[in-house]
Amino acid sequence: MTAVALKTLLNPRSVAVIGASEDQTKFGGRLYKTLLQHQYAGEVYPINPSRDSLFGLKTFASIQATPQAPDMVIMALPRDKVKAEIAACAERGARAGIIITSKFSDAGPEGQALEREVVEAAARHGMRLIGPNCLGLISPANKLVLCSSPALNVPSLIEAPIGFVSQSGALMGTLFDRSYGLGIGFSHCVSVGNQADLELCDFVEFLIEDDRTQVICSYVEGIKSPQRFMALARRARLAGKPWLMVKAGATADGSRAAYSHTASLAGDFAALKAICDRENIVMMDDPLDMLSLARAMVRYPARRVSSVAVITTSGGGGAISADQLSHAGIGLAQLGAATRAGLAEHYSEGQANNPIDIGGRRHEGSTDELGQVTAELVLADPATDLGLMVLTTAPDVPGLTRQLAEGAQRPAAAGKPTLYVMLPGRVAAPAREMLVAGGLPYVDTLAEAMAILRGWKAWSTYQAPEAPSRPAGMAAVPAPAGGTLGEAAAKALLAGVGIPVNQERIVRTADQAVDAAGALGFPLVLKVVSPDIAHKSDVGGVALNIDSAQALRHQLALMQSRVAQAAPDARIEGYSLQKQEHGELELIVGARRDPQFGAQVVVGAGGVLVELLKDVAILGAPVDPASARRAVEGLKVAPLLKPYRGRGALDIEAVVDAIVRLSWLAHDLESQGLDFEVEVNPLKLRLQGQGAVAVDARARIGAR
Amino acid sequence: MTAVALKTLLNPRSVAVIGASEDQTKFGGRLYKTLLQHQYAGEVYPINPSRDSLFGLKTFASIQATPQAPDMVIMALPRDKVKAEIAACAERGARAGIIITSKFSDAGPEGQALEREVVEAAARHGMRLIGPNCLGLISPANKLVLCSSPALNVPSLIEAPIGFVSQSGALMGTLFDRSYGLGIGFSHCVSVGNQADLELCDFVEFLIEDDRTQVICSYVEGIKSPQRFMALARRARLAGKPWLMVKAGATADGSRAAYSHTASLAGDFAALKAICDRENIVMMDDPLDMLSLARAMVRYPARRVSSVAVITTSGGGGAISADQLSHAGIGLAQLGAATRAGLAEHYSEGQANNPIDIGGRRHEGSTDELGQVTAELVLADPATDLGLMVLTTAPDVPGLTRQLAEGAQRPAAAGKPTLYVMLPGRVAAPAREMLVAGGLPYVDTLAEAMAILRGWKAWSTYQAPEAPSRPAGMAAVPAPAGGTLGEAAAKALLAGVGIPVNQERIVRTADQAVDAAGALGFPLVLKVVSPDIAHKSDVGGVALNIDSAQALRHQLALMQSRVAQAAPDARIEGYSLQKQEHGELELIVGARRDPQFGAQVVVGAGGVLVELLKDVAILGAPVDPASARRAVEGLKVAPLLKPYRGRGALDIEAVVDAIVRLSWLAHDLESQGLDFEVEVNPLKLRLQGQGAVAVDARARIGAR
Repeated sequence: MTAVALKTLLNPRSVAVIGASEDQTKFGGRLYKTLLQHQYAGEVYPINPSRDSLFGLKTFASIQATPQAPDMVIMALPRDKVKAEIAACAERGARAGIIITSKFSDAGPEGQALEREVVEAAARHGMRLIGPNCLGLISPANKLVLCSSPALNVPSLIEAPIGFVSQSGALMGTLFDRSYGLGIGFSHCVSVGNQADLELCDFVEFLIEDDRTQVICSYVEGIKSPQRFMALARRARLAGKPWLMVKAGATADGSRAAYSHTASLAGDFAALKAICDRENIVMMDDPLDMLSLARAMVRYPARRVSSVAVITTSGGGGAISADQLSHAGIGLAQLGAATRAGLAEHYSEGQANNPIDIGGRRHEGSTDELGQVTAELVLADPATDLGLMVLTTAPDVPGLTRQLAEGAQRPAAAGKPTLYVMLPGRVAAPAREMLVAGGLPYVDTLAEAMAILRGWKAWSTYQAPEAPSRPAGMAAVPAPAGGTLGEAAAKALLAGVGIPVNQERIVRTADQAVDAAGALGFPLVLKVVSPDIAHKSDVGGVALNIDSAQALRHQLALMQSRVAQAAPDARIEGYSLQKQEHGELELIVGARRDPQFGAQVVVGAGGVLVELLKDVAILGAPVDPASARRAVEGLKVAPLLKPYRGRGALDIEAVVDAIVRLSWLAHDLESQGLDFEVEVNPLKLRLQGQGAVAVDARARIGAR
Repeated sequence: MTAVALKTLLNPRSVAVIGASEDQTKFGGRLYKTLLQHQYAGEVYPINPSRDSLFGLKTFASIQATPQAPDMVIMALPRDKVKAEIAACAERGARAGIIITSKFSDAGPEGQALEREVVEAAARHGMRLIGPNCLGLISPANKLVLCSSPALNVPSLIEAPIGFVSQSGALMGTLFDRSYGLGIGFSHCVSVGNQADLELCDFVEFLIEDDRTQVICSYVEGIKSPQRFMALARRARLAGKPWLMVKAGATADGSRAAYSHTASLAGDFAALKAICDRENIVMMDDPLDMLSLARAMVRYPARRVSSVAVITTSGGGGAISADQLSHAGIGLAQLGAATRAGLAEHYSEGQANNPIDIGGRRHEGSTDELGQVTAELVLADPATDLGLMVLTTAPDVPGLTRQLAEGAQRPAAAGKPTLYVMLPGRVAAPAREMLVAGGLPYVDTLAEAMAILRGWKAWSTYQAPEAPSRPAGMAAVPAPAGGTLGEAAAKALLAGVGIPVNQERIVRTADQAVDAAGALGFPLVLKVVSPDIAHKSDVGGVALNIDSAQALRHQLALMQSRVAQAAPDARIEGYSLQKQEHGELELIVGARRDPQFGAQVVVGAGGVLVELLKDVAILGAPVDPASARRAVEGLKVAPLLKPYRGRGALDIEAVVDAIVRLSWLAHDLESQGLDFEVEVNPLKLRLQGQGAVAVDARARIGAR
């Protein structure tokens, strides 16, 4: 489906409503009335064999009776009638259809089979379908409403350049209703339902191309076509269109709920997040916050929002705002000396700084335009990216809101973004109306403001990845042996792509061990080698700090008896004697093939911290060094990479290099059609210039 | 101030309004009109020398001219007139006064001096003051409104058993306004302003005693009388009255804002949080969420809320709810087999489980009372503590809301709490009105619901501390030497209270070192001893893993030259040779005197993790073992206390014992009037039964 073709489908010249009626208790009645209500400019064909006319329009007994084939049909028939009707519509030449009816693939295998038959019946004549199990579409840009939700019972639609694609119909209706009250409009909203034919990616592609859409919002439960999704994510980014997403199933509980909803597997949240991070899709927790951010981005396109100046009518509001900004990782703008001097003309000592309490004026009534002056001064400061106006109950909330808005419009304020937080209830109602009329973004709680600012900051401080290039001298990886690779084989694979591994010798007897120790040098590590033992330390199969030949003999004997007791049936292939490497920090790095998104690499806190911190970044492979470095610097353990308690900085370039090389290994394995996991844990990281070394590793390589 | 006396002050028989007028642009005009509007039953004396009557009431030229001394006076005079007027009122016999005027101690030393004089003028005649720099009080329980906020311009007050004390006047007005729209009422709201005389604790004490208050809410910037605060926190807990608090200044930015607001130091947030945790004061981030939780607690007193069943009209809403509950640490109720069987009669396969999508019914129209049936079934399940009703746009939101409410009232549902999340806008307006009329708690966003549930869970799963008792055989600690204690002295202090420390010998020469090594046994640690070196590792003054006499001589020589280079002027008192102790986990434990709250102990992740994880619990001292154990089990590193990768569980009792002993040390030092800090880092923790050992320590003990 090309975006151009979809553009025609979403702007049909004629719509047939199957089962149209005047009865507002029926889906068909509500669909029909809502369509008529919003001045759709094309032809409407109500289909109803038992009435001559409905709301003054001539009806038709069947789809065959319409004067010409409709561009679009919509139906909410009982499930057992859908297939025949779709077949009839397709035969008649309808180009597209919306099926509201549920209980298809969302309700078990039988429904799934029926759904396939419905799609085939349509496809036979080139007819495309939205749904089933959807809520239709709302397209203010085309004055086209094909949706039965009571939320559409409004005097007029608000058109705004925000597109919304939703895998939940009820959420689409809910958000339309809530947004309407906040003055937020849309270009097009589509509920994709079971995505039996047209799916999320089709509509996102359309919105990327659509001139009347500037920001794309999406509610996602599962991605049907991951490769296409990745390509579209890149296209949206290159087109400069922000794409915001709420993804259900971020947690195990959420996944289960999403599964039972539309039978779409929620997929691996972390793997999807890696793609979103790479392509600057902003993931948000709450769909209403997503729409509020979209409104702000439409009003203030292409702005960097990283530091905030707070203007408030209450010191308490300022204090809580500052706390919440700090929690959200948003900086309070450090106002310059000139700004502070300007404020000091109007504010008491100690109050002429961010956050600014309008109530803290120097003299009662010192200026009638304090709000205006303050907003202008503060927004004019180069340190301020955005003015956060936190309004509490004050003698004249509407007047003050107007002053702030006027100050923000002064030339010195340079059109900087503002966001109003309207904490009062009734007292602020006229001010809210004024903000809606002026197209100024506002929210009702600080929590919403923080969610918006967090998303805005993430989007506006994004750094695009560079084109990844294979490290100099690194050849494409030849097809490796398949199966589960033990430590030695995994390390050989790593060494082959240029990742340093510690030296080892495989020994079987104490005498062999002592010989090998002479070559490796103390201190040493001893590990059991067995294809049957995955976690060596669990069976006492690891001994550290061996510092003499005597200790080596002793430890080997101890290990033999421990392992024999803990894993009597394991085939022991020998013992690995390894140089004990020193490192300042243990990391985990790995490569894997995600079933949806392909080759990815992982980096995080290693050793005992892996499970404790769950401090991991996932990146698409291959990756460029700059992106790898940003991922490492974003880890919770990143502070330990810097000089610390008398030791110097650690060799971050060595980790970056290991990640890049692993990512090319992943890329090559992916290209060979293989499935794989490669894990180094720990990678011991040393001081700057001293590199890193992989001291344990495992891998699994197989067919897909 | 006793609570009984305050009860009389807050229920005055007569009120004088200084500067009363009919002009609604003036404070005095608004104060006067608002007082008359809400049917205050006592005498009102408008004071205005230039009018005979105001709104039909006879005026008086001055406070001296009133027929009798008023119980209460209120004024918003210019600052320079306040002192004389307060003196006159006090002389006239007024019992209490409210000063709205600002620019006293909130605006520098001069204002502070004037504020003191005002308080003295009142105190001379036993008159008590609220403010200055406050917004007065709103007491629906007494039909008394002494507040000029436009938020009070409502047809009637809502009385409910929620008391609110606020250090920010604007927030009080704002929350009153917002709450009013949600149908949330109050018993008494007081804005305490600069707390020149009556302060937060006075009003909290009154609310604890007040029969018409069940839940206490507070907005706090700084605690004026910490000891009294602690005593009241305990009293509120023992009285079974939930106390909720929003504390500004949780972060550095928030602290600055709070400081510039009311000149009250924000204090140490963590130290305050320790007290709140101990006494079950619930700290919340947002004041509106605090009031919503108060409403829920009033409607459903003394409930345990730990697991939640979600009933929703949208699978998408259910998925997002499940995600957010998981993030918030609230469990989804695991419904029993009987409940699931009951649900399966009405819902499709895979849908008859929590979260429950009302849209997922088995047949269209399978029951007209699906909401009712579902709510009853789910709430009747013993696993369900609370029903979270997440309403999205649906054909009949009000009807469904009514059904859910009716189901929750059925006997089987056992009066379990419900919380409605009304996601739609206009479509849900009639349903919101119905909830307000029925006294059923609701919010408009999932984020608010999560904040409420998190606070409710914390409050309802609280475990009271046991009475702490001194460990058997531990004597009261005698007065220690003051000053900064080096490692050896600090360890001696610890050993004195029964905390195990590693063995050490102080040596000066290589020969002495080798001799000492014979007594201690290898492996050994070597550390420089100098009063001038606080961070030994920063100057190369620590060597680990010394395993032979030869290595010892070598390391000592190396260290001497390193330290000589890094700290040439340091006085070297010798070298400490210590047995190198093995441990599975490094913790930090410490004791300190908080300037506000006195003796406290600290436990957290130690070693390199201290600064990385900031994983610390603070407890008041002395502490009982059960509370210490809960604190340890609540740390982020707590999972490492359990069996892990082949090793057994760690000796948590050894940590608990160290904390308890440190807490008694802290208690004893506090009792001796000393200021102190004692820190063990790391405390090396071993396997169960093998104890823990302090391998480094320092302390500072001084006069207060």
